[in-house]
Amino acid sequence: MHFGLQFFPDAGPDEKSAQAYWNESLDLIGLCDSLGYSHVRTVEHYFNRYGGYSPNPIVFLSAASQRTKTAKMLTGAILPIFNHPLKIAGEIAMLDSISNGRMEAGFARAFLPHEFLRFGRSLDESRARFDEGVEQVRLLLEREHATHHGTFHSFDDVTSLPRPVQKPRPPIWVASTSSPESFKLAGQNGYYLMSIPRDADQMRELIGLYRKSWREAGHPGDGWVMMTFQMYVDRDEAKAIETYREPVNRHLRYLAEASAEWGKGFTSKDYPNHPKMLEALRKSNFDDQRRDNLVWVGTPADVRERIEKFDEAVGGFDVSSLQINTWTLPKDLAERSLRLFAEEVAPHFFARRRTPPPQSARA
Amino acid sequence: MHFGLQFFPDAGPDEKSAQAYWNESLDLIGLCDSLGYSHVRTVEHYFNRYGGYSPNPIVFLSAASQRTKTAKMLTGAILPIFNHPLKIAGEIAMLDSISNGRMEAGFARAFLPHEFLRFGRSLDESRARFDEGVEQVRLLLEREHATHHGTFHSFDDVTSLPRPVQKPRPPIWVASTSSPESFKLAGQNGYYLMSIPRDADQMRELIGLYRKSWREAGHPGDGWVMMTFQMYVDRDEAKAIETYREPVNRHLRYLAEASAEWGKGFTSKDYPNHPKMLEALRKSNFDDQRRDNLVWVGTPADVRERIEKFDEAVGGFDVSSLQINTWTLPKDLAERSLRLFAEEVAPHFFARRRTPPPQSARA
Repeated sequence: MHFGLQFFPDAGPDEKSAQAYWNESLDLIGLCDSLGYSHVRTVEHYFNRYGGYSPNPIVFLSAASQRTKTAKMLTGAILPIFNHPLKIAGEIAMLDSISNGRMEAGFARAFLPHEFLRFGRSLDESRARFDEGVEQVRLLLEREHATHHGTFHSFDDVTSLPRPVQKPRPPIWVASTSSPESFKLAGQNGYYLMSIPRDADQMRELIGLYRKSWREAGHPGDGWVMMTFQMYVDRDEAKAIETYREPVNRHLRYLAEASAEWGKGFTSKDYPNHPKMLEALRKSNFDDQRRDNLVWVGTPADVRERIEKFDEAVGGFDVSSLQINTWTLPKDLAERSLRLFAEEVAPHFFARRRTPPPQSARA
Repeated sequence: MHFGLQFFPDAGPDEKSAQAYWNESLDLIGLCDSLGYSHVRTVEHYFNRYGGYSPNPIVFLSAASQRTKTAKMLTGAILPIFNHPLKIAGEIAMLDSISNGRMEAGFARAFLPHEFLRFGRSLDESRARFDEGVEQVRLLLEREHATHHGTFHSFDDVTSLPRPVQKPRPPIWVASTSSPESFKLAGQNGYYLMSIPRDADQMRELIGLYRKSWREAGHPGDGWVMMTFQMYVDRDEAKAIETYREPVNRHLRYLAEASAEWGKGFTSKDYPNHPKMLEALRKSNFDDQRRDNLVWVGTPADVRERIEKFDEAVGGFDVSSLQINTWTLPKDLAERSLRLFAEEVAPHFFARRRTPPPQSARA
């Protein structure tokens, strides 16, 4: 298994400035290569302390690329619904150029109603805009003189610049959380998958669906799956829990706050499961999530065991993306946890590291 | 006078890769602080070797911020007509956070018809979209709970995140080349001005207009004016000319190529002077421009004299933005020229360095 670092800013201006958050994150990223973390990842969110410091993940990753030489620079994720495909394709290839071919492009549908409302987008167009957006960006990255006539955007004979370093283009990841249709489609299209772990039985089924549709579409290998976890290790288990319980609970509260509309009877045909899923998340907490091995907080030995169990329960996955610096955690403690994990946890899973299957250009 | 560095990629994929161009540029930027260059600047252009490697200047500047500690990170310029104001405001504040308060936001109207055509924008809306876009971004950066109902975009009670480090916000620059109305408006609004030098008498008049309207609007000081120059120095004058004549002529040819529509009878009410201005540029060349002190190529003594003359001819300006690494120039020669200029040219103009006047929040 590969382990990378996820930077999800969940603070508002009266809590911790973006200047402090991003600069501390960059310092931690400086340790990434030497400690063997395989990626740096950040989100796209707006207007709210749930991720809102990162309205364009590529801007932060471009800075992060200057603190690393080998780690991948992964968007987790770009939201096509709020961006023009010509712009996204250009930015992806710029980062791929600046980082010497280390860019990986994760895309998601977005799910916070307040973002849609402010950008004047309908949630009911979510899937259509996502499918069209990813397809158009893929085409612009793969081909010169690309033409595509879509429902939302169209272009004729466009050669997007820069041309990406990676061929046929930077790998594409798709974020899916609950919809079997999304997991299936990601596999069919030969895209890597990023998800947020919930109930292990359900994840096992969804991942199985993804891998099955990957194979059936004739892609080489068995797909490529990433899960995101809150991670904090300390040799003293009680201290680890004491340090990270409130940050995890707060992250869940901020998610509830940012997605409040779903709890107020808001519905969309494109999000049949979201009201229920977010209701469940709102009701969950650190202790529940730790019991289910969805947060990795404890001693190195304890966390090793949680990873083993979760990996087995979902039928195996490939990459863990670790959230490691909640804003109330002093940087030196985040660094200590990062080092301890790299020394005493990660190596136990190196034997089962695979190589991601290649992605191919559209026929 | 202050001197900064402009990175204008004017190469296509069959000439020099964006990977090579951006990474060489980053290495040169590493010298910026120690040699006393005051800013790093890049453009926004698309789909063409005239600037098209830089579809989002903020992405490159974010990387550049990690190679410098004091230089300003200046967009030269963001094009509101191709971007959503909510997105621009967020990206500006991200870079301001990542760079520890060194971001400066230059905006322009765009002028290449092929870009408008591909984004499906009318050139006749250029001024209206520019004015609205800059005003909305300014509002989003200055205020929490910002509301603005425009012709093209509207928002209610939006607090853009992150909040910028600089207060009331990063300085705003406006790019103007030929329209007296634009120079006047920039002064009235209290924005800094960036321009491309042409006929000195005309520049003197336009800059005078800008400074006059700055003062009349009651802003402190006398405005702040930047000009862009191609620069290359060598102790051997003939060698300097031999090295940089073709790059300057090629840059002009690429401009002609990228703006070809203007030469084919294309017109727009928002660009009354552009067909004529671009026709003149197409007809000009290195030798003409050097004669008029519009390109700074020669020995250090020769270039000092050109700067003196041009500065005097236009009635004084504040910042020079130097294009220093045309893509055919080996990096070591660019570096040598940068060092030589910093040692033997720039210091002669330090005595007349002023401090930029502050920009204030909207009443």
